[in-house]
Amino acid sequence: MNGIILFGHGARNAEYVEPFRRIQAAVARLLPTTPVELGFLELTEPALEASIASLAMKGVKKIRIVPIFFAPGRHVLKDLPLLLGNAMDRHAGIEFEIAECVGMVDEVIEAMARHAVRGA
Amino acid sequence: MNGIILFGHGARNAEYVEPFRRIQAAVARLLPTTPVELGFLELTEPALEASIASLAMKGVKKIRIVPIFFAPGRHVLKDLPLLLGNAMDRHAGIEFEIAECVGMVDEVIEAMARHAVRGA
Repeated sequence: MNGIILFGHGARNAEYVEPFRRIQAAVARLLPTTPVELGFLELTEPALEASIASLAMKGVKKIRIVPIFFAPGRHVLKDLPLLLGNAMDRHAGIEFEIAECVGMVDEVIEAMARHAVRGA
Repeated sequence: MNGIILFGHGARNAEYVEPFRRIQAAVARLLPTTPVELGFLELTEPALEASIASLAMKGVKKIRIVPIFFAPGRHVLKDLPLLLGNAMDRHAGIEFEIAECVGMVDEVIEAMARHAVRGA
């Protein structure tokens, strides 16, 4: 079984998590039998490590980490590989895959552009 | 004439700006006669204030600010209104509109979800 983690930055305000829950729900509609978790770098729960541990408990063999970032900056290029390196030590049987940042994907860019021009 | 500013956070690495340029190009394809600028909160150029000044020089009467953020956190709820308050003092004839964060938009959420499940 494979699992998916939507990896976000995290923020101080509780409402911040809402769009992440909406992406999670949309993923669950597309792949109802695949476990999908949120995992944050800081400030917002659950932390990435906790979500990896949760999927490991469910017996997943491979985890696709999807950075919910517009562009690969320090958090995706440095913090994430570091966190995954630690996770690989703790969960030796699990394979990790890092997807492209959502903001780099053509379809997402086109959808953002259509929103930008609405009413302009 | 109206203008659009894609408002992003900014980051230390130069490649960070790439997806923003791609959204800008997609907006320009949709509305070829509407000036569209990038404007960043910090670290990346141009700063939001500089882009507002640039559109003001072009004679725009209304500027739609589109937060390229997943969720409204401190930067969108506090920093942005503060920056716009200052801009309104400097550019009295210009009307400002703040669009919803791109990450809150259904179409963008669905596109992110489709990316998340690709290959999973």
